[in-house]
Amino acid sequence: MRTPVLVINYKNYRQGYGDSGIRIAEYAKKISEQYDVEIIVMPPFTEIRSIINVGVPVYAQHADPLGYGASTGSIPLEALKDIGVRGVVVNHSEKRVDLRFIAKVIELSKKLGLETLVCAEDINVAKMIALLEPEAIALEPPELIGSGRAVSKAKPEIITEGVQAVKSINSKVKVLAGAGITNYEDVAKAIELGSEGVLVASAIMIAEKPDKVIEEMVKALKK
Amino acid sequence: MRTPVLVINYKNYRQGYGDSGIRIAEYAKKISEQYDVEIIVMPPFTEIRSIINVGVPVYAQHADPLGYGASTGSIPLEALKDIGVRGVVVNHSEKRVDLRFIAKVIELSKKLGLETLVCAEDINVAKMIALLEPEAIALEPPELIGSGRAVSKAKPEIITEGVQAVKSINSKVKVLAGAGITNYEDVAKAIELGSEGVLVASAIMIAEKPDKVIEEMVKALKK
Amino acid sequence: MRTPVLVINYKNYRQGYGDSGIRIAEYAKKISEQYDVEIIVMPPFTEIRSIINVGVPVYAQHADPLGYGASTGSIPLEALKDIGVRGVVVNHSEKRVDLRFIAKVIELSKKLGLETLVCAEDINVAKMIALLEPEAIALEPPELIGSGRAVSKAKPEIITEGVQAVKSINSKVKVLAGAGITNYEDVAKAIELGSEGVLVASAIMIAEKPDKVIEEMVKALKK
Amino acid sequence: MRTPVLVINYKNYRQGYGDSGIRIAEYAKKISEQYDVEIIVMPPFTEIRSIINVGVPVYAQHADPLGYGASTGSIPLEALKDIGVRGVVVNHSEKRVDLRFIAKVIELSKKLGLETLVCAEDINVAKMIALLEPEAIALEPPELIGSGRAVSKAKPEIITEGVQAVKSINSKVKVLAGAGITNYEDVAKAIELGSEGVLVASAIMIAEKPDKVIEEMVKALKK
Repeated sequence: MRTPVLVINYKNYRQGYGDSGIRIAEYAKKISEQYDVEIIVMPPFTEIRSIINVGVPVYAQHADPLGYGASTGSIPLEALKDIGVRGVVVNHSEKRVDLRFIAKVIELSKKLGLETLVCAEDINVAKMIALLEPEAIALEPPELIGSGRAVSKAKPEIITEGVQAVKSINSKVKVLAGAGITNYEDVAKAIELGSEGVLVASAIMIAEKPDKVIEEMVKALKK
Repeated sequence: MRTPVLVINYKNYRQGYGDSGIRIAEYAKKISEQYDVEIIVMPPFTEIRSIINVGVPVYAQHADPLGYGASTGSIPLEALKDIGVRGVVVNHSEKRVDLRFIAKVIELSKKLGLETLVCAEDINVAKMIALLEPEAIALEPPELIGSGRAVSKAKPEIITEGVQAVKSINSKVKVLAGAGITNYEDVAKAIELGSEGVLVASAIMIAEKPDKVIEEMVKALKK
Repeated sequence: MRTPVLVINYKNYRQGYGDSGIRIAEYAKKISEQYDVEIIVMPPFTEIRSIINVGVPVYAQHADPLGYGASTGSIPLEALKDIGVRGVVVNHSEKRVDLRFIAKVIELSKKLGLETLVCAEDINVAKMIALLEPEAIALEPPELIGSGRAVSKAKPEIITEGVQAVKSINSKVKVLAGAGITNYEDVAKAIELGSEGVLVASAIMIAEKPDKVIEEMVKALKK
Repeated sequence: MRTPVLVINYKNYRQGYGDSGIRIAEYAKKISEQYDVEIIVMPPFTEIRSIINVGVPVYAQHADPLGYGASTGSIPLEALKDIGVRGVVVNHSEKRVDLRFIAKVIELSKKLGLETLVCAEDINVAKMIALLEPEAIALEPPELIGSGRAVSKAKPEIITEGVQAVKSINSKVKVLAGAGITNYEDVAKAIELGSEGVLVASAIMIAEKPDKVIEEMVKALKK
């Protein structure tokens, strides 16, 4: 993961499926190239193959620490790797898992050459995850997710203290900020506070002009 | 679901991904048409779109009782419907869920016009599920799954008693048998014992010639 | 369980521990004898032995389907039986369990000669539980628990439909009503709607004069 | 917790209930005083009050991070404190909880003045827990629990590496060893490898002469 980075969580918004999901990935690709800023997209599982075809880096929204074989209804890391994702997200506030599960996902991802972005709801959890050395941790206070109130404004201390806490455990782990991030200013503030990128969902996914929002956020990252 | 039926669970076998997964779906389609017997396939989530393109009926391996919106890492029924699946499986032994979850999946599936195939590990559970009126219940004693010992031979009474128990609650609910079913004889026996179809995974998925196994099983269903 | 019945859930209110918990059990015993109405109390685990000494019938607030042996931090049915409880409650809204777990608790309780009172949050769940033939089912809409708005007034149809649904599955299973029941009138109404008893917590436990509330409710049961 | 320490997990062995449970606590008390070595016992919840009366330090086998109030079937820390336990165990292999739950238990225990002994199944988990600064961590490889093969002999490196890992995070956190510890030699070896005490269950609880086993182990701790 190259930083500063914009990670776009498609969630299961209708706009993330089918043609409109592909269009958003195409915007991401174009703007990423134009500004030379890393943009990663997280489409729903059924859309992963078509989004990868766009040529933008893809993270899965969740994954199970499994290889191929006799499992049903799960998302094996090994299959994701072969399909071409670059990484996986685990422990999103809408898909919480036990920290032991996170440990297994990180361990197998490293073997397979996949990156891991692990969400953390508070600083205690972020520190515990940092010990496991994922590629990156996203600090997301659950009460701000989808709130329209940006973490970088409503709880700036989460970012400053979180960055410090994670780096004190392992300085190589990147720290992103998420929850409620809506515009240029929210992103700029998040970077100013020490984060190395942002995780954004609704502000882009349900925007009338998602390309404008992406571009605005990328400019804030570049500043 | 037309009965008798063969349901092929791709699980997460390597053979179920990419071109070989498509090939198995093509076999299913051809043999289904040739013998006029219903064959349903259950591919992994990332493969659903390409398998639907083959023109064979598809069930998802699991689903969440959700519409589009702010959820991450889950499998919303509403999106599956729009993508074109015909139904969903829930409570597979490798993806157990609470019975309340099953109730919600069945309820929303009915609203959306999706079929539901619910796995049951014993007769008590099968009866409770029958009250919820899914399209079908698959009786699968967990200890026989993947064992190569067919439920229809190793535990025939599970099928006879299970069929009777489910039908006594709701005669419209179809009953399939699964676990360890490997060949013509296992399928024939399952039908003879009163089931209306079979759920098969490894016997087809890791076969050298999956088309031969599918054809053999379909012949047994037709008998 | 003799009906009509008053079941007092001590929950973990401070008043349910130590001397004040014993006093409430003594009130229950006295009023039960005076009016010849069954009253059952559900103390916290650590208080079970001292409350049993009072001579009032005791149900545990939860139990695990286990015998004696190598388990830690759980509540084995077999030990509860030997200690002298008459029954156990499972699936309270504050201690939800999977329906499979309920099936196991009911099965082992029958073997041991313990009664089971199973809480149900809606009519679907109540019907599924009725198939398992517990001693009794308590209908408790979660949104009314602790609300002060009695189920018998706010959602009377839950009781009438619930009683009918459970009895249509198994007429021997008793049906109690719970959630928000506060006074004489709430209890009288619950009985009038067809329930065979009530499950009450805060109205008694945090009352200034719990004996008065118990007596009032017992009069309503007797009416 | 004074070290070296012997912690006796009563589990739910029949011998831990009633008079025989009290007898074992009395042995613990007597031997503890005689040898001036700390012995802590972990009785089942229903036995906590009678064992505390013996005058030996008691830890609960599990606890929930709750105060008094409207909860059912759980074990509130606040009530345990008032009853007189000195500490609580969480995350025993027979009662696993999420690491977030552990964080909450440790936090509330500190406020209440209760000690916490947290079990860890591997070194990764032990390190994560050490960040939360409990009183002590017990290293217990699950595959050895109840096996009769002592961790100190079968996996000595777990103890040496675990002690080092925990102390590198927080040198104040004590480290105990558990799983399969049966006799003098196993205890002596555990101490020699750097642990500050042992957690023992079946070797004492189902012994014909538990007092002899306790005494033997205490001698090994003193050595």
